[in-house]
Amino acid sequence: MSEYFAPVRDMHFVIKELAGLEQVAELPGYEDASADLVDAVLEEAAKFAGGVLSPLNWPGDQEGARWHDKAVTMPAGFKEAYKLFADSGWTALAAEPEWGGQGLPKVVAAAVAEMWKSANHSFSLCPLLTAGAIEALVLTGSDELKATYLEKMVSGEWTGTMNLTEPSAGSDLAAVRTRAEPQADGSYLVFGQKIFITYGDHDMAENIIHLVLARTPTAPEGVKGISLFVVPKFMVNDDGSLGARNDAWCVSIEHKLGIHASPTAIMAFGDHSGAVGYLVGEENRGIEYMFIMMNAARFGVGLEGVAVCERAYQRARDYARDRIQCTDIGVRGGPKVAIIHHPDVRRMLMTMRSYAEATRALAYVVAAAHDAAMRHADAAVRQRNQAFVDLMIPVVKGWSTESGVTMASLGVQVHGGMGYVEETGAAQHLRDAQISTIYEGTTGIQANDLIGRKIAREGGTTLNSVIDMMRALDAELASQGGGHFAAIRRRLAAAVDALAAAGDWLVATYRSDVRAASAGAVPFLKLLGIVAGGWQMARAALIAQAKIDGGDHDPFFTAKIITTRFYADHVLCEAAALASSVTDGAEGVMALPDEMF
Amino acid sequence: MSEYFAPVRDMHFVIKELAGLEQVAELPGYEDASADLVDAVLEEAAKFAGGVLSPLNWPGDQEGARWHDKAVTMPAGFKEAYKLFADSGWTALAAEPEWGGQGLPKVVAAAVAEMWKSANHSFSLCPLLTAGAIEALVLTGSDELKATYLEKMVSGEWTGTMNLTEPSAGSDLAAVRTRAEPQADGSYLVFGQKIFITYGDHDMAENIIHLVLARTPTAPEGVKGISLFVVPKFMVNDDGSLGARNDAWCVSIEHKLGIHASPTAIMAFGDHSGAVGYLVGEENRGIEYMFIMMNAARFGVGLEGVAVCERAYQRARDYARDRIQCTDIGVRGGPKVAIIHHPDVRRMLMTMRSYAEATRALAYVVAAAHDAAMRHADAAVRQRNQAFVDLMIPVVKGWSTESGVTMASLGVQVHGGMGYVEETGAAQHLRDAQISTIYEGTTGIQANDLIGRKIAREGGTTLNSVIDMMRALDAELASQGGGHFAAIRRRLAAAVDALAAAGDWLVATYRSDVRAASAGAVPFLKLLGIVAGGWQMARAALIAQAKIDGGDHDPFFTAKIITTRFYADHVLCEAAALASSVTDGAEGVMALPDEMF
Repeated sequence: MSEYFAPVRDMHFVIKELAGLEQVAELPGYEDASADLVDAVLEEAAKFAGGVLSPLNWPGDQEGARWHDKAVTMPAGFKEAYKLFADSGWTALAAEPEWGGQGLPKVVAAAVAEMWKSANHSFSLCPLLTAGAIEALVLTGSDELKATYLEKMVSGEWTGTMNLTEPSAGSDLAAVRTRAEPQADGSYLVFGQKIFITYGDHDMAENIIHLVLARTPTAPEGVKGISLFVVPKFMVNDDGSLGARNDAWCVSIEHKLGIHASPTAIMAFGDHSGAVGYLVGEENRGIEYMFIMMNAARFGVGLEGVAVCERAYQRARDYARDRIQCTDIGVRGGPKVAIIHHPDVRRMLMTMRSYAEATRALAYVVAAAHDAAMRHADAAVRQRNQAFVDLMIPVVKGWSTESGVTMASLGVQVHGGMGYVEETGAAQHLRDAQISTIYEGTTGIQANDLIGRKIAREGGTTLNSVIDMMRALDAELASQGGGHFAAIRRRLAAAVDALAAAGDWLVATYRSDVRAASAGAVPFLKLLGIVAGGWQMARAALIAQAKIDGGDHDPFFTAKIITTRFYADHVLCEAAALASSVTDGAEGVMALPDEMF
Repeated sequence: MSEYFAPVRDMHFVIKELAGLEQVAELPGYEDASADLVDAVLEEAAKFAGGVLSPLNWPGDQEGARWHDKAVTMPAGFKEAYKLFADSGWTALAAEPEWGGQGLPKVVAAAVAEMWKSANHSFSLCPLLTAGAIEALVLTGSDELKATYLEKMVSGEWTGTMNLTEPSAGSDLAAVRTRAEPQADGSYLVFGQKIFITYGDHDMAENIIHLVLARTPTAPEGVKGISLFVVPKFMVNDDGSLGARNDAWCVSIEHKLGIHASPTAIMAFGDHSGAVGYLVGEENRGIEYMFIMMNAARFGVGLEGVAVCERAYQRARDYARDRIQCTDIGVRGGPKVAIIHHPDVRRMLMTMRSYAEATRALAYVVAAAHDAAMRHADAAVRQRNQAFVDLMIPVVKGWSTESGVTMASLGVQVHGGMGYVEETGAAQHLRDAQISTIYEGTTGIQANDLIGRKIAREGGTTLNSVIDMMRALDAELASQGGGHFAAIRRRLAAAVDALAAAGDWLVATYRSDVRAASAGAVPFLKLLGIVAGGWQMARAALIAQAKIDGGDHDPFFTAKIITTRFYADHVLCEAAALASSVTDGAEGVMALPDEMF
């Protein structure tokens, strides 16, 4: 079984050179984030990911989380791994020092999170959801709620969940029906059923802090009548010790395509006496608060796409190096060669490799922008970065995860028949990856968010500023010699033009014909992802060439330029077709009457 | 659980209008294949597929084939279903009347086979492999072998297998090491291990006829030293009754991503006394004979791609009609609507629908060409059709199955979170579909066959004749009114130009730089698939318009034109990028040294 080795070299390069670690380290509170510290963190995380989490990935899939008598038992080894994970401080990495966190920048946490996800997708979901719950409480919880819950969640002693979905309220949160009845002591009793609750129950931590969307008796209909509540699995006494079991129970878990070691719970709140809950922030603002968690979670899920591109690439590459089959093409009677030498296998590996690098580059750049948006001293800089983050989160989520599924499928194919045998491990990545395109909002949901709230609402301002940044690379690309940079320049320029045309069309059409605009939403999201990834890869190639020109002959830089060249010729070239699907595709989407499908 | 309803209307349309049933019925031996007979066969097959095979699909997946003590037990219901299948004459549909077959054209058998595959992929593999074994024996077996085996195989009493792969001989059949030692009585004793043997053992039939590749002691090295042997599970006495158990045993089955009800056997031949085998045809011509089965099997696997596009489409459409979520986009406070009304869901459904129709159209047209290639009175017509079939088999195999995987994945996404829950059934299609891109040769193997043996070897003659046929549609498309036909014409013309340019480049480059040509093999295969599918869809749209113009207002015809329009704007538009990946993509594929991956 091939284990995971974190791509620390590329991670460090992207953090330092593309995401601008030096600028991040100038932000208030991030002064310690030196290149040396980041290296040390990445090295330690790489050891944990490869040495502890990766070996549990396959056995965790095969054993799966098991449900019995309203409680979930995790697969062998997960409880111990989680304890080691928390004890090593990994749950606290990016959290506020005020609550015991290490306060590292999001761009560093993103790289570390990518490692957990590559090594063990199922395991990584527990800290992902907990981090989202922490962020929501930090930003919106009362001092009492913070004091009661945050330290234990940051330390990893307790974990967190997000309880949004109900059987009739999936993408449509307006349909939430869970009730919260106010009690004399200021608390609430929560009644209702929630589904698809990741880590809704497990045996790795002593308490679970559920954040639950519910309606108070006086709440208006729709999304503006939903409030957010903390509902702990065990009540917390005044001294911080655990009290009675709350009436929040896992009544079943789902039988899923993948992430078998991640328990997906059906939660029953208040089937007996009512589940005690505490209002977070103000009444009826729950959706707004939940979107704080949701945006963090969407970014985190986007990293799952990066992670599976990398993991599937590594496994396929290792197999392709070992597997001897056929002579070199065009050579009769020569020696048999490793299949990595066959052109089509190379094409598949280069595709996977270039997607891993492009999705990573974009995600980390967005993470660094998030750091600046939170911390920069200049309000205008904060605002500009926040607009960039808002624009790109649905792209990081939707594009990276769609790419992850496709790359995992390619990874299976590199293995030939062995890829279809579960023990090989390639198929698990495909099964696990598929959920990333769905939870925290399907790709269609991301794409509608992108074209509506993030582009049309502001008339395309942020999108156009990004396009300007992309175009600003052209002169530098033109000044480079050699065929690689000529091809990169040509492909990027054409792709950016296609993006700009599609963006203009969207802004113009969204007001006049929102259904036509929506018909092109997903092609546009993929277009923006591909072009933004190419933009970052082109930046990377230029930096790599500058290093080489400066006398640094690390083969990493040569490989970066070649990988960018590949991406330009095989991925950026798709931009024109995607743009035309946006601008000319609506009639074909809308013409067939519902009943004729 | 949504059951399968065969798309009989579209199947009949494609057989009659696109594949030219009237011309097929003029071929010697196919005189009975009238439209009425075809309708009756399709209706009966549809009942069997929907009523018997489809209900077994999900339970078969969950129970799976089980191995114990060198024997396989099929999931509940499969044995009974198989008996009913054979008793109803379905195993005999396309077989020669001389051996008890019904002798129907391949184009009709293709539609019927698509139904089995849509309804129950696992089940369908048993008759698929048996049909391949029958074809090989009919064409190359001695009279004695034919007399001993064919009738029982055609009747379905016995089933057949293909035994090619060994642990070190996957795509590389030259590496086959299984031995066959001649005996005094003219038989052989076979010794060796074969892996990935579909239905290598099961309990649905009383005997299994293995066709096995092996080397005789005097055989030369490489592919020209491999012979083909019949190795029955049970020896056959002179009176046709079953004799002793042969030394051919299933020693294990694989634990796979999907097709759980299809046992994938590891076969041990001759672990004890030696497995008695009989030479098929001449010594050392085994690979040549095996390719007879292989080409039939590749076409059959291509139909799996068609079948899963259709099945995934049906399930997603049914869900999208039932699932109510959110108001119509742009409408505040209106009623909640079925998600089929949301533009992005429509886009996904139209994508699936158009792929199902395009892959079906191409596959059936190829099947009809196969009928003409086998039976036409005019040798020149036979030869022309055979060249078309040879060119298109890797496309039907590679393009349809790659499309099937993508459409099954889209089908999961239409279901949102429910798609990831196994009980929904959408995920099974994805798990099952994934093998179709691998077995009988991966997409890379198909693509190398396409560009090498099928295009470069003859200088692109057949490809260019197909391109001429595509271009001949242009005038007719130009003469139609309306935006749909204008878009179809424009997209098809551009796509055909891209195909022609890529084809010319391939023919020129294959001789001078075979590695560069191979780097573009898979993009070229997809390009040819997309354009050939668009060609057939454009033909279909023209016929549909003629029907409407003639006063036939069956909504099927309107839907066909709209679906073609969608395919043009959302699929054909990809042609230019694929062509540029072929002609400009090799440097990016080949530049990175093996050790730098």
